Amino acid sequence: MLRVPFEDLRTVLEQAMRRLGLSPDRAHLCARLFAETTRDGVYSHGLNRFPRFRAMVENGSIDVSATPTLTTAFGSIERWDGHRGIGNLNARSSMQRAIELARTSGIGAVALANSNHWMRGGAFGWQAAEQGVFAICWSNTLPNVPAWGATSPSIGNNPLILAVPRANGHHVVLDMAMSQFSYGALASYAKRGQPLPVPGGYDSAGHLTEDAGAIEASQRALPIGYWKGSGLALVLDMIGAMLSGGLATHQLGLEPLREAGQSQVFLAVDPSNLGTAEELSRVADGILDYLRHAKPVDPTQPIRYPGEQTLLVREENMRLGVPVDPDIWSDLSR
Amino acid sequence: MLRVPFEDLRTVLEQAMRRLGLSPDRAHLCARLFAETTRDGVYSHGLNRFPRFRAMVENGSIDVSATPTLTTAFGSIERWDGHRGIGNLNARSSMQRAIELARTSGIGAVALANSNHWMRGGAFGWQAAEQGVFAICWSNTLPNVPAWGATSPSIGNNPLILAVPRANGHHVVLDMAMSQFSYGALASYAKRGQPLPVPGGYDSAGHLTEDAGAIEASQRALPIGYWKGSGLALVLDMIGAMLSGGLATHQLGLEPLREAGQSQVFLAVDPSNLGTAEELSRVADGILDYLRHAKPVDPTQPIRYPGEQTLLVREENMRLGVPVDPDIWSDLSR
Repeated sequence: MLRVPFEDLRTVLEQAMRRLGLSPDRAHLCARLFAETTRDGVYSHGLNRFPRFRAMVENGSIDVSATPTLTTAFGSIERWDGHRGIGNLNARSSMQRAIELARTSGIGAVALANSNHWMRGGAFGWQAAEQGVFAICWSNTLPNVPAWGATSPSIGNNPLILAVPRANGHHVVLDMAMSQFSYGALASYAKRGQPLPVPGGYDSAGHLTEDAGAIEASQRALPIGYWKGSGLALVLDMIGAMLSGGLATHQLGLEPLREAGQSQVFLAVDPSNLGTAEELSRVADGILDYLRHAKPVDPTQPIRYPGEQTLLVREENMRLGVPVDPDIWSDLSR
Repeated sequence: MLRVPFEDLRTVLEQAMRRLGLSPDRAHLCARLFAETTRDGVYSHGLNRFPRFRAMVENGSIDVSATPTLTTAFGSIERWDGHRGIGNLNARSSMQRAIELARTSGIGAVALANSNHWMRGGAFGWQAAEQGVFAICWSNTLPNVPAWGATSPSIGNNPLILAVPRANGHHVVLDMAMSQFSYGALASYAKRGQPLPVPGGYDSAGHLTEDAGAIEASQRALPIGYWKGSGLALVLDMIGAMLSGGLATHQLGLEPLREAGQSQVFLAVDPSNLGTAEELSRVADGILDYLRHAKPVDPTQPIRYPGEQTLLVREENMRLGVPVDPDIWSDLSR
């Protein structure tokens, strides 16, 4: 495995962003977000995603110069237009605006229309938690999962993020999409010839299966909780498109390289009027302590909370270097 | 099946509430909520729940006279104390307060500590949608589901509700708990000797199973989406307890008849500054139209959206009478 220092990864990405036409400050931030995503172990949406990101800049789906503008403001909720700018930059500024609204009103929301793939949704949960703020945010996607009862792609694999700040910096950040496994994860299992740990979809004969290749062939990935995740994906899409005034899943096309115009929602709650960070953290600590003392299925496998693994991977990758795909790395760093 | 007119059900429940010591107006509203829950087909949390509700009033877990009081207000978020009053009345007034906050600020939130089982969570989603308002709300519960990686109950089966208003009154209301099947549903399948339609938990040997009786025996119901629902349940509990200043799942004990003091969160968004109800509904209509035209697994089974079935059952039960358990009905109505 090729590992490179985080700062090298960030610098090489920044240079690549400059070559795509981003202004210096935007190239710096965008590259940092990509590099941090890889550093935190979300390899699919960091460096490895750069070639697709570049292709979408080149085919006009992403406008590297566009920045979000305010469409409508009412109290603590605002509607913004992302003008098909860079997804992670648009999302970051939207979450930051929701945090500002929460600072003055306890709770704030931004509904962002017409944006782009935000890459790693969890980044915006960490962003809020690092500022002591709770966050809930989600994005819609193109239709890539069959709804419950359907065999054709009819709902988005909409990522949903919930973030809980803790005074010790060990924030709890849940970052989950609506299918049990991403198509990226299915591809890895299929390539290794490994069965999925739990059923991940239907084969072409309509049977629930742990065979990743069979699910790739049928394109029938399973929504989490069957009818429940299917309903949740649908409702998140509705709220996102209705509040933002932007596109719904079914309007995002079926071509990943042209998937642009996502609708996203960013909610932030500033708890600083509800108690000190330490008081609030004690509540979180009690919950995590109870979790840690549950009876494990396998005594060698600790029971983890969402985000715990992220910090372990981050520490390891900062210490040993961040794993990179050699081909993408040599392409970018030469 | 014994069916009774809705108004008879409501009246009999109102008289029963009066006998428990509720004031006339509170007895009226509480009975209506119980009756509407049965009318809408959520039989487990309407009339059938009344005996347990009564037992919890009698054992002191529910204070029929207590009403919520404001603890802290900051901008568009408020923290309330439910004083262990009646769960559905506390939740209803909290959602109404969140709606009021949303009317003046676009978005509003109430975090309610020290409440009680809110019965049917979906009721508060419908409440908001009927007023043209989006809602997200949830409650924690006592620990009754093993976290992912654990065999002992360590997370709550926390219900989560998302509601989307539509101008035609056909609101979209998702009301889902964190386990794939409730223990009530498992009991019904076990009694009928029917396999579950999808795996619902683990047997005592640790194998995923569709045998409801085996899951009842192991008490290892499955969180939706395995690790994902487990994480979601945990995070909802954290946000609820931290924002409300109330109890977390692990502090709610293990005895259902003493489960009191739930923490709940009510979020409301008033979209009236973002467009007319008709404009917003067109977005929802487009999404549901796309869903309806997905390729069905079984052409005789329509693909449904969350809440669609509720309206069908409601209409049928208003027309034919509301199905009631004969024993509970004769006990209450004599």
